Amino acid sequence: MSQRIYVDFSMNRDNLSLLEAATRDHQLLFPARPVASVLHKAEWDPQLETVDILFGQPDPTHIVKAGQLKWIHVSSSSITRYDNSSFRQLVAKRGIIVTNSAAVYAEACADHTLSFMLAQSRQLPLGLVTRTANGSDAWAKIRSSCTFLRDQTVLILGFGAIGRRLVELLSPFNMRIIAYRRRARSDEGVPVIEKEQLASTLAETDHVINILPDSLETQHFFDQSRFTLIKPGAVFYNIGRGATVNQDALLEVLKSGQLRAAWLDVTDPEPLPEDHPLLKQQNCFITPHVAGGHFNETGMLVRHFIENFQRYIGGEPLINRVM
Amino acid sequence: MSQRIYVDFSMNRDNLSLLEAATRDHQLLFPARPVASVLHKAEWDPQLETVDILFGQPDPTHIVKAGQLKWIHVSSSSITRYDNSSFRQLVAKRGIIVTNSAAVYAEACADHTLSFMLAQSRQLPLGLVTRTANGSDAWAKIRSSCTFLRDQTVLILGFGAIGRRLVELLSPFNMRIIAYRRRARSDEGVPVIEKEQLASTLAETDHVINILPDSLETQHFFDQSRFTLIKPGAVFYNIGRGATVNQDALLEVLKSGQLRAAWLDVTDPEPLPEDHPLLKQQNCFITPHVAGGHFNETGMLVRHFIENFQRYIGGEPLINRVM
Repeated sequence: MSQRIYVDFSMNRDNLSLLEAATRDHQLLFPARPVASVLHKAEWDPQLETVDILFGQPDPTHIVKAGQLKWIHVSSSSITRYDNSSFRQLVAKRGIIVTNSAAVYAEACADHTLSFMLAQSRQLPLGLVTRTANGSDAWAKIRSSCTFLRDQTVLILGFGAIGRRLVELLSPFNMRIIAYRRRARSDEGVPVIEKEQLASTLAETDHVINILPDSLETQHFFDQSRFTLIKPGAVFYNIGRGATVNQDALLEVLKSGQLRAAWLDVTDPEPLPEDHPLLKQQNCFITPHVAGGHFNETGMLVRHFIENFQRYIGGEPLINRVM
Repeated sequence: MSQRIYVDFSMNRDNLSLLEAATRDHQLLFPARPVASVLHKAEWDPQLETVDILFGQPDPTHIVKAGQLKWIHVSSSSITRYDNSSFRQLVAKRGIIVTNSAAVYAEACADHTLSFMLAQSRQLPLGLVTRTANGSDAWAKIRSSCTFLRDQTVLILGFGAIGRRLVELLSPFNMRIIAYRRRARSDEGVPVIEKEQLASTLAETDHVINILPDSLETQHFFDQSRFTLIKPGAVFYNIGRGATVNQDALLEVLKSGQLRAAWLDVTDPEPLPEDHPLLKQQNCFITPHVAGGHFNETGMLVRHFIENFQRYIGGEPLINRVM
């Protein structure tokens, strides 16, 4: 049966050709005024009333009026704007499938996390701005501040596609890796802890990697009480969502030295205001929400959609199904 | 038989206790004026005339007068100051064994190299100084400049302990890894090329990793003709020795954009003079010869020496034997 597929963002000629070729027997629809980015929320478009499949970032309130909709493929890894009980009830009642694009961003996010871990252990921010002779005090200071990932303990909070890939990347370092997630599914490949074990695990973790999504239960998940549980000298990484961290509490444990350093790809808000104290904190390193980015995001989004579309047409289970 | 062991550098109480415990039935000798660093060249000391084993950085000219010497364990990975035909002839004639401390520095150097590769692919130097909102041009520029190590081609020049460890660290990235070394020993675990294949290999390599030692045949190994053979858009890394690179030629291919970037832990001289053009070159990133450094260098040097000493006493082959 021919499907009406609505794509709410624009793409270049190559990616469009790819998408057209893969949906030849179906109808591709685009908004009259396409949005600039695959991550921007789209405007209401009357065409939505007639579409079967939606690929992009639909406004959740539009779904009520999209009466024919059977499948939403979200063009991001995050589903924050859909992750609430009223939306979940709506799609459950209507039998709408929701998938996301986690597979497209997982590899880049895992690479970004490992780049943070190694930049910290090799003291890159200091090394890259220090010009000094072999044997000087500054030279000895950098060398003696370098550590090994090998044999250290890592806790990954929010264990999905990124966590899985990160476990693969960390495998040569012989680390002790532990995952924390809402519901253990026994396919994680690493030990999974629950809330009761969090305090004792944080106390023995050298690398706390926060990939928690933004939801009501994760707001300020890392607050003063959680931060003070972390092993002294540990490093904190956030490549999930800024809202999961109480930044005042983070600043305190960075100032006290309880945390050796923090590496953040996400903050709250983004960017932080110019006078925010985390920007002046020497052991705090921030990139501007680029962990999932790479040169071929749209191309990979399109390929990922096509793979799921072929599964959809073939009646097979979809990849990255979230509802 | 009791050995007279001369250690030409000083160490803290813990490491000294470790060394003393492992050499209880032997004699440990230290210079009256110990040098500050394990990498400093030691002064002449008349005690050298009577020692069996030397652990440190002896001046090569002192070895002639150290008439009882049977084994030199060099406290570095580099053996540049001993790697010449007159020294090799001297130790060969006298039957002196020479080992180095490659095992102590290999892991840190491999970590440092991967930190360079990921900092480049994730655009960390730019990301860490950019404060921008999601969706801005600056944001899109960083994201679209990020690349994947996965599936790319790596050439490792000078394939020893560091190269071996780097191959392990890169294994999750599914890269095509090729080694170049003077003499293939068929235990490398990756394809090894010789000089004849260098031009064609450079033309298809995305990451050129220079770990060549400093010797007469490697002086300016990377000159204008070799640099221009490298695949356009490739990244060049040097964690070997600065003298193996013609820096004027490097500057040219960085300016032209033929090389996407260079990441150097070593230069010639070290540090570069303040007005050196490589320091102003935006796609050139330099750390001050710290790749092998870590918080426990002396501790690991001592443990490595002890392991070799036990082998020496037991008549077993020594680790990291270089002559």
